[in-house]
Amino acid sequence: MSHARDSWDLARVVAGLSAERAQQDVRLSPRCCDLPSREAMAQFVDGLRAALFPDHFGPRGLAPQGVDPFVGYTLDAALRTLHLQVLRELSLTGECDENPRADAIVASFADDLPAIRRGLESDVHAAYRGDPAATSLHEIVFCYPGVTAMTHHRVAHALHVRGLPLVARVIAERAHAITGVDIHPGATIGGSFFIDHGTGVVIGETAVIGDRVRLYQGVTLGAKSFPTDATGALIKGRPRHPIVEDDVVIYAGATILGRVTIGRGSSIGGNVWLTQSVPAHSRITQVQARSEVFDGGGGI
Amino acid sequence: MSHARDSWDLARVVAGLSAERAQQDVRLSPRCCDLPSREAMAQFVDGLRAALFPDHFGPRGLAPQGVDPFVGYTLDAALRTLHLQVLRELSLTGECDENPRADAIVASFADDLPAIRRGLESDVHAAYRGDPAATSLHEIVFCYPGVTAMTHHRVAHALHVRGLPLVARVIAERAHAITGVDIHPGATIGGSFFIDHGTGVVIGETAVIGDRVRLYQGVTLGAKSFPTDATGALIKGRPRHPIVEDDVVIYAGATILGRVTIGRGSSIGGNVWLTQSVPAHSRITQVQARSEVFDGGGGI
Amino acid sequence: MSHARDSWDLARVVAGLSAERAQQDVRLSPRCCDLPSREAMAQFVDGLRAALFPDHFGPRGLAPQGVDPFVGYTLDAALRTLHLQVLRELSLTGECDENPRADAIVASFADDLPAIRRGLESDVHAAYRGDPAATSLHEIVFCYPGVTAMTHHRVAHALHVRGLPLVARVIAERAHAITGVDIHPGATIGGSFFIDHGTGVVIGETAVIGDRVRLYQGVTLGAKSFPTDATGALIKGRPRHPIVEDDVVIYAGATILGRVTIGRGSSIGGNVWLTQSVPAHSRITQVQARSEVFDGGGGI
Amino acid sequence: MSHARDSWDLARVVAGLSAERAQQDVRLSPRCCDLPSREAMAQFVDGLRAALFPDHFGPRGLAPQGVDPFVGYTLDAALRTLHLQVLRELSLTGECDENPRADAIVASFADDLPAIRRGLESDVHAAYRGDPAATSLHEIVFCYPGVTAMTHHRVAHALHVRGLPLVARVIAERAHAITGVDIHPGATIGGSFFIDHGTGVVIGETAVIGDRVRLYQGVTLGAKSFPTDATGALIKGRPRHPIVEDDVVIYAGATILGRVTIGRGSSIGGNVWLTQSVPAHSRITQVQARSEVFDGGGGI
Amino acid sequence: MSHARDSWDLARVVAGLSAERAQQDVRLSPRCCDLPSREAMAQFVDGLRAALFPDHFGPRGLAPQGVDPFVGYTLDAALRTLHLQVLRELSLTGECDENPRADAIVASFADDLPAIRRGLESDVHAAYRGDPAATSLHEIVFCYPGVTAMTHHRVAHALHVRGLPLVARVIAERAHAITGVDIHPGATIGGSFFIDHGTGVVIGETAVIGDRVRLYQGVTLGAKSFPTDATGALIKGRPRHPIVEDDVVIYAGATILGRVTIGRGSSIGGNVWLTQSVPAHSRITQVQARSEVFDGGGGI
Amino acid sequence: MSHARDSWDLARVVAGLSAERAQQDVRLSPRCCDLPSREAMAQFVDGLRAALFPDHFGPRGLAPQGVDPFVGYTLDAALRTLHLQVLRELSLTGECDENPRADAIVASFADDLPAIRRGLESDVHAAYRGDPAATSLHEIVFCYPGVTAMTHHRVAHALHVRGLPLVARVIAERAHAITGVDIHPGATIGGSFFIDHGTGVVIGETAVIGDRVRLYQGVTLGAKSFPTDATGALIKGRPRHPIVEDDVVIYAGATILGRVTIGRGSSIGGNVWLTQSVPAHSRITQVQARSEVFDGGGGI
Repeated sequence: MSHARDSWDLARVVAGLSAERAQQDVRLSPRCCDLPSREAMAQFVDGLRAALFPDHFGPRGLAPQGVDPFVGYTLDAALRTLHLQVLRELSLTGECDENPRADAIVASFADDLPAIRRGLESDVHAAYRGDPAATSLHEIVFCYPGVTAMTHHRVAHALHVRGLPLVARVIAERAHAITGVDIHPGATIGGSFFIDHGTGVVIGETAVIGDRVRLYQGVTLGAKSFPTDATGALIKGRPRHPIVEDDVVIYAGATILGRVTIGRGSSIGGNVWLTQSVPAHSRITQVQARSEVFDGGGGI
Repeated sequence: MSHARDSWDLARVVAGLSAERAQQDVRLSPRCCDLPSREAMAQFVDGLRAALFPDHFGPRGLAPQGVDPFVGYTLDAALRTLHLQVLRELSLTGECDENPRADAIVASFADDLPAIRRGLESDVHAAYRGDPAATSLHEIVFCYPGVTAMTHHRVAHALHVRGLPLVARVIAERAHAITGVDIHPGATIGGSFFIDHGTGVVIGETAVIGDRVRLYQGVTLGAKSFPTDATGALIKGRPRHPIVEDDVVIYAGATILGRVTIGRGSSIGGNVWLTQSVPAHSRITQVQARSEVFDGGGGI
Repeated sequence: MSHARDSWDLARVVAGLSAERAQQDVRLSPRCCDLPSREAMAQFVDGLRAALFPDHFGPRGLAPQGVDPFVGYTLDAALRTLHLQVLRELSLTGECDENPRADAIVASFADDLPAIRRGLESDVHAAYRGDPAATSLHEIVFCYPGVTAMTHHRVAHALHVRGLPLVARVIAERAHAITGVDIHPGATIGGSFFIDHGTGVVIGETAVIGDRVRLYQGVTLGAKSFPTDATGALIKGRPRHPIVEDDVVIYAGATILGRVTIGRGSSIGGNVWLTQSVPAHSRITQVQARSEVFDGGGGI
Repeated sequence: MSHARDSWDLARVVAGLSAERAQQDVRLSPRCCDLPSREAMAQFVDGLRAALFPDHFGPRGLAPQGVDPFVGYTLDAALRTLHLQVLRELSLTGECDENPRADAIVASFADDLPAIRRGLESDVHAAYRGDPAATSLHEIVFCYPGVTAMTHHRVAHALHVRGLPLVARVIAERAHAITGVDIHPGATIGGSFFIDHGTGVVIGETAVIGDRVRLYQGVTLGAKSFPTDATGALIKGRPRHPIVEDDVVIYAGATILGRVTIGRGSSIGGNVWLTQSVPAHSRITQVQARSEVFDGGGGI
Repeated sequence: MSHARDSWDLARVVAGLSAERAQQDVRLSPRCCDLPSREAMAQFVDGLRAALFPDHFGPRGLAPQGVDPFVGYTLDAALRTLHLQVLRELSLTGECDENPRADAIVASFADDLPAIRRGLESDVHAAYRGDPAATSLHEIVFCYPGVTAMTHHRVAHALHVRGLPLVARVIAERAHAITGVDIHPGATIGGSFFIDHGTGVVIGETAVIGDRVRLYQGVTLGAKSFPTDATGALIKGRPRHPIVEDDVVIYAGATILGRVTIGRGSSIGGNVWLTQSVPAHSRITQVQARSEVFDGGGGI
Repeated sequence: MSHARDSWDLARVVAGLSAERAQQDVRLSPRCCDLPSREAMAQFVDGLRAALFPDHFGPRGLAPQGVDPFVGYTLDAALRTLHLQVLRELSLTGECDENPRADAIVASFADDLPAIRRGLESDVHAAYRGDPAATSLHEIVFCYPGVTAMTHHRVAHALHVRGLPLVARVIAERAHAITGVDIHPGATIGGSFFIDHGTGVVIGETAVIGDRVRLYQGVTLGAKSFPTDATGALIKGRPRHPIVEDDVVIYAGATILGRVTIGRGSSIGGNVWLTQSVPAHSRITQVQARSEVFDGGGGI
């Protein structure tokens, strides 16, 4: 039985935390509204995914005549959810009652959905063409973490470019948590993009990726150096991540840093560390490992 | 308040998505049944895990006399869940009412469960022997992501070899999402297998792993090249991933590609990139890094 | 319809599993109590996080006068949850009714919470200073996986040092599953710590990290060799992971193994493999990759 | 702590219950399918109610353009749920795979929904005209238990007359549990029907009620005697409940039994006990109570 | 398997329902906000009840120091929930953005809570004094439906008198559904009120009940006649229900109708039908039943 | 948006409630344990019901071999839940750590379950014999509120006689809320008992009911007077409710009060008010109502 004793000093801890909050500045004060809700954003993305691929993520037993009503209602509910979160994000920067702007953002985003679906469809086909283990398009839509990551990214990017960095980031970090793929919502990615396995992939905010690019797990498209201003603070927003042109393949664990360009049709080998541009059709590989007969010693 | 205005053009977006679906071919049409349910497969695996390790994942306060009824009921419920999902997968390839085959698959799978448990028990002991940080067998069963990954894999593999690639893949991707360990259900793995930390491990479809093998985070056992047929399409199903013999250790971040053989007792160092077979008792290490005194410059 | 036939041999499988359990030793028998609950520990951490950062994780619409009652109640509920789990863990080692010790542990842990919050606040500021993509402190608190990982770690570590390795490990593995960052609860980490992206980071049990250290994805601070005793069993608990001094930066994919010291102000390059100590202000980089023009052959 | 002891004799109780089941005949054996699900029927009714009155039971913030998609999807989902339960009920009487009949039943039921809505609308107006406490039509739709009861009844009756007594009864008993109004699904009820307060109202299987009838709490329209056949078993299905013609009012607690007719425009007083027909425009009241000055004795 | 055929004509039914909605007037159009949420009101009442009686409805294991934080947070959350619903109700009558009025209503209601608790405490004691079956005050607080009904009523009445008839009615009908006791939120009820058993009790909108009154199941305090205006519409709001003075007992099934006064200290017998005032200390009983020896005939 | 202002005076209300609690005596202080949980007791009853009638309340698709494991596990879980609640109730009267007594109570209760099932089976058959509207035994088990009420009562009574009045009362009030049938757990009821419709039935603590008794809605078996002791407090526990012998039928709305005996085979008419014993085979009916032609006046 859990006995009802005063086993800890609750009042002292509450006071201590209150004092900490008062001294520190990671606060929302005064604020007009609440932060966007991560649960709501998750419902939004899941609803959207079901509306985009009703055969795969819609309800059991959906018949043809039920598809459009399902899509219509699910989409409408998802957009209403988004609308409320957009209002919250806008309120954080002082535009608390700016309903018209929220309406316009959501409406414009909604109009992008057919194109977003087209992009995802191209990603699915790219996976089928690029993975010998893929047995069907259904398996890819339904199971592949790369498709999950891109579903989140294509949506998050469409919100990021409409001035909603926080809402977009919440979506991106959800994909990161589920798939291990960390794509900043600001990254620009072309069609027919395929990330295989995906865990550990990092794609930075200002990266630009062309069409038909393929990445494997552990690939980083990162920044090399972080220029600071006169006060020593980081300068934010500058282009600092790679440009990857069409038809490039980057193998597992490769790290490419800085505003370099990987020329079209290039192949970057696994575990490569690269901080320079390479011309089109380059083939970059790592120096080979040393091999020797094991001497039976105590581990490596 | 969320005002009830028509802020976006719902009908236009629904029509746009409908047009996209009509043009594209990632569809299930006509289909006999629904796709397997990811939620149901998750319940199946969790139920099975509780039936395999009732002390660790069973209900609070279970007394000895309650164990077998708990195992019996939980197992039966899990197998009934599986049975329904098997029917769904079989229906995708035109065998919609083939109940007898589903019955036979589930019955055969059920008979494998004692052996699956034995395999997992050997994995737990391997972790205890291989990790100085492990304080008890309970901690390993209850907390180690490598055990979670192998619980999913040993189940998924048993379903994969029974002709259920989609159901198996759903299970594998669940493990991938939770643990960051991506093992294709087709991979063959011996006893006393230990993956430490695990994030970023990738083991391909045709990999074959012996007994008492130990892997660390970020290890890839992948394919090197993807042969295509005369039409340029990938040839699927060919052996293309490594064979790892008994008693091999592969350290963090090593990448081994192609149908190569890592001889028994070998040790592959961290971050190594390897595309050739190595004989038994090899010891492979990466070329060392360059070291220099830091000059205080602006980042790397 | 799922027909009610006896499609598998339930009794045989139950008996088989019972026989397996009887032969094996991964059991809790006899035990006084149940294992700690992972669901309860998750509620504990989420409650604690809301009590630490009520603006970001508290309820919608919380007004100033509601903050302290919210913090007080949420904290009290979280501590009561913890108390029950502590009793369970203590009971595993034979101290089943040792309520006073559980009370003391929880009370002492509670008194640490203001300091834990201060540490997390310093981590948030470190992220803002270290990431050009960060747009606000709110985004960091609310979205950054590195902050999620450190929230779990600072709590888990405080429990680990109070003699609760299992409860601490459950928390650590939850962070690992969500963020891909695997920090053993035993690791000692200073203030203003920033892990960017995070997936694949591994920090071992006896690692010691100073102030203002920054890590990127895929960094391993691991053990190099595992000494065994006369019976061949691993010697547990020995210092075997790196010491990282103040103001060190370690880039993506670097692997540092063994009880080495990375001197203050050093910079370790991406994908570096390092098993030796380096002096203060060192700058370590990987040997560069080979570059060549791609010949159009069939993959890498 | 709940200790894991064998505190009761589980095996003996299980065996005792098994023996009871074997001796008794309230069993479903052999059966083709499962019983309908009460949870599913509750979802069905709630979904239907939202589709019938989307302004009152639909989602928050529904805009005009969203109404038809909401109705379409919600209705479709409700009908699919019903379809599955219809298959289950049909299977209880040996028609396990008779899909076409289930399809026809659901399709025919669906076509009745506009008329069902019209009937409910008339009930709402009747309540507004009949209750001085009603402040708005919204209050009636949203709060009045009589409307809840009739929503269930009009749906249950439509299923009862289509040969689904069990599914209909499940719906009727749900209304009974929520409102205290017990209307057998077989009862025939006209338009503009108003039950005020409702608790304790009982309306039997073969009752026939005209238009514009008003009932108060505790009214029973029951059977008077139960004829038996030669074996002493009840004869089922005979008309045995009252006929209540148009424009009748029956006040609280009145009990009317047998196949009698209450003529149009009649008024039946509270607590009246009536087992005979009365002509049109009758006014029936109870004999008045005795009144006396209280003597201060010990209760009544 | 549920096959994906178009078994019913969804579009036709949707169109039919749309046509019905267009013809009828039970609509909310145009509306500014949504209707109050029944789920939210239920959470509000449950939260309030826990804040009023934390020992009985608070969390498990609450220690003394935790009580006030629990009450404070739970109350604050309940009041925030109420605030949102108040805004919705106010918006139905054209005061959509009238936040200040909602603030004032909720603040004033909050100030009434100590008095509401005092009233409930007096009800609990009245039950203990009035029911020989009551074994403890705890049993009454925790189990008695009369206390549940009065908890809802005292809250609903406090909202009704503040101009929120719909929100109040939602609360009252929740109590009705749970307890079978139907008290209109407008009814005025004194202290130490005890309803035993309760099912079927109806207390009308303008009833006025004194202190220390006791009612049993099935008692109606209703209206006798409903005056209409020149157009035949009911005149709403007139006093039309009984006045029950202090220390009256009304036994099971009694029906009292009209604006009559039951004098203080009176006792009204079971099943009595009363439409006239009675002086103080009256004792009213029903005419006795006829008794005869049963003749063995076929039912009653 | 809900703005974060301090709209009510939270601290004042919390202080007011605290002051109320301090002045009043409906408190649990000091207490050893928590009150039993109503949610837990609901789970207990539902689990028990499924274990008693697995065909009707067990899982979908249960095959013969799965029945005993299902019953065993479900029963064990229900008994463990009960065990915890028994500990809580015992702790309220100072027996906080009296585990052995709780064990004995639960074990003894468990041994009663086959007899409880037998009683319920007899009730189901009584309903089938007594209700012309009953179409099958399944309908009765699955839908009839009288069976729901008796399932709760037979369980609650078995706990009441084992010294658990509070736990028993929680169960009884759950049945009351669902069915409108209020049977005190102390009431003694024979086999083959049938309550039809049920709403408003009240059966008091010391009532004794024989075999094959049938009741209809609104029947009260209550107390007539409440003797007090020298201090004016009620004397608790005295026999004060009716004895109903075998084969009695009591029709809707009848009220029988006091320790009277209704002789075997008697029939009590609807709405009868009875406070005297009647001999065997009596037939009691109410005085008939007055009938007259309605004069068109304004209501009754």
